[in-house]
Amino acid sequence: MGKVTLLGAGPGDLELLTLRAARCLAEADVLLMDELVNPDIVALAPRARAIKVGKRGGCKSTPQDFILRLMRRYALRGQHVVRVKGGEVLLFGRAGEEIDYLRRHGVAVEIVNGISSALAAAASLGMSLTHRQHCRGVTLVTAHAQDHSEPDWQALAATGTTLAIYMGMSRLGSLSRTLLRHLPGSTPAAVVQWASTAQERRLCTTLAGLERDAARAGMGSPAVILVGSAVAEAVDAAMPTVRDDLTFRSAGRAGLLG
Amino acid sequence: MGKVTLLGAGPGDLELLTLRAARCLAEADVLLMDELVNPDIVALAPRARAIKVGKRGGCKSTPQDFILRLMRRYALRGQHVVRVKGGEVLLFGRAGEEIDYLRRHGVAVEIVNGISSALAAAASLGMSLTHRQHCRGVTLVTAHAQDHSEPDWQALAATGTTLAIYMGMSRLGSLSRTLLRHLPGSTPAAVVQWASTAQERRLCTTLAGLERDAARAGMGSPAVILVGSAVAEAVDAAMPTVRDDLTFRSAGRAGLLG
Repeated sequence: MGKVTLLGAGPGDLELLTLRAARCLAEADVLLMDELVNPDIVALAPRARAIKVGKRGGCKSTPQDFILRLMRRYALRGQHVVRVKGGEVLLFGRAGEEIDYLRRHGVAVEIVNGISSALAAAASLGMSLTHRQHCRGVTLVTAHAQDHSEPDWQALAATGTTLAIYMGMSRLGSLSRTLLRHLPGSTPAAVVQWASTAQERRLCTTLAGLERDAARAGMGSPAVILVGSAVAEAVDAAMPTVRDDLTFRSAGRAGLLG
Repeated sequence: MGKVTLLGAGPGDLELLTLRAARCLAEADVLLMDELVNPDIVALAPRARAIKVGKRGGCKSTPQDFILRLMRRYALRGQHVVRVKGGEVLLFGRAGEEIDYLRRHGVAVEIVNGISSALAAAASLGMSLTHRQHCRGVTLVTAHAQDHSEPDWQALAATGTTLAIYMGMSRLGSLSRTLLRHLPGSTPAAVVQWASTAQERRLCTTLAGLERDAARAGMGSPAVILVGSAVAEAVDAAMPTVRDDLTFRSAGRAGLLG
């Protein structure tokens, strides 16, 4: 019997894969790769046939139904299918629907966690997402919904948690204007684009300056937007600027990979 | 010059370490290990002197000031100090204060992300924390605060996000009674204790049954409590019970490690 592994490939840097992910890739027969996954990951899966099933760019998008049927078909042929997703499997993406489909069709499913981009972004900024002098937690939320509805930003702001907003760059103007109705303009904010990769860019600013500064810096998707008092810990005297040379630098780029 | 790496060791299973974490451990001179870290991790750091600096159990707790001075002292002697924390470095724990202290004392700091227990718990339950048919995000929040204050549970409930509550088992009664003031008793809830380890235990229930079922099952710390509509995806016909034999099983225990 085959099986499907839903695997979180992290935000880009292959060193952020888990040991389990690496072992799983080495054993894979088929990789179904999302658009944002680092293409070099195929080197870790020497036995596997790699198929791109991205939802954007290139030749339009791969319909979700097609991806589901592909996973099922290969698994029922006895193959080990690894569905490679950017970041963490169980945050955003469509793992919920894929698990549900595979269960209903009697296909064994495994889940291999990955590092989500908000965590890699916070590492690059040298800040805890839940610094206890600032907050009691963090909310990971997507600005993009299937039905184009908005999250309840008022309730989210009222929690006092750090907000880590995924998929918000394409509507950054309306997003920041909405947040400004519920949070002070002086609230620290940051954007990290392509976290953990060689193209990573970081912006530290305030909620009031977010739209202007991100536009000025030419920042776009994929990026995580961080908003909240704890983000002050990442902000230095040079704000607001794109800080290509942070005084304090995090693991990946400075020490260990540098 | 020495340096300090704040390293997320994940929830217990050493296969959840990242490749970077493994490389970093192999290079370490000194490990400062938190209480909940899997002690077998020292095998990955053959050069290092391992020092336990847990905040509970055994010989009372190690004062935070002592840990800070220890990190600084070894780093200033030119050693590579790896501060090994359970789960993810930048969620809870005291990474914020440690980063701040080390920066102020001119010690280079690196951050290596890890898998947080809420993600490992969700993997074990085979559920997405942000299933788009249920919610727009997830809030990771600690029930325990330095000043014994409570998070704003009303605002948290109003967000409609899945709640992943850390450090809540010792006050599960008052916690669930408070949540019941803001959410229906039928709201799906789960507890995962010792996620990803051989001792892992899972409970799927409702908010109304949470306190009773967790007590009946004898569940305690360390555990993550999940509350919200998306948790329904983890709940099967056998609820509420401690499901030692889930029909659907996640990566770690069933397939890959089995």
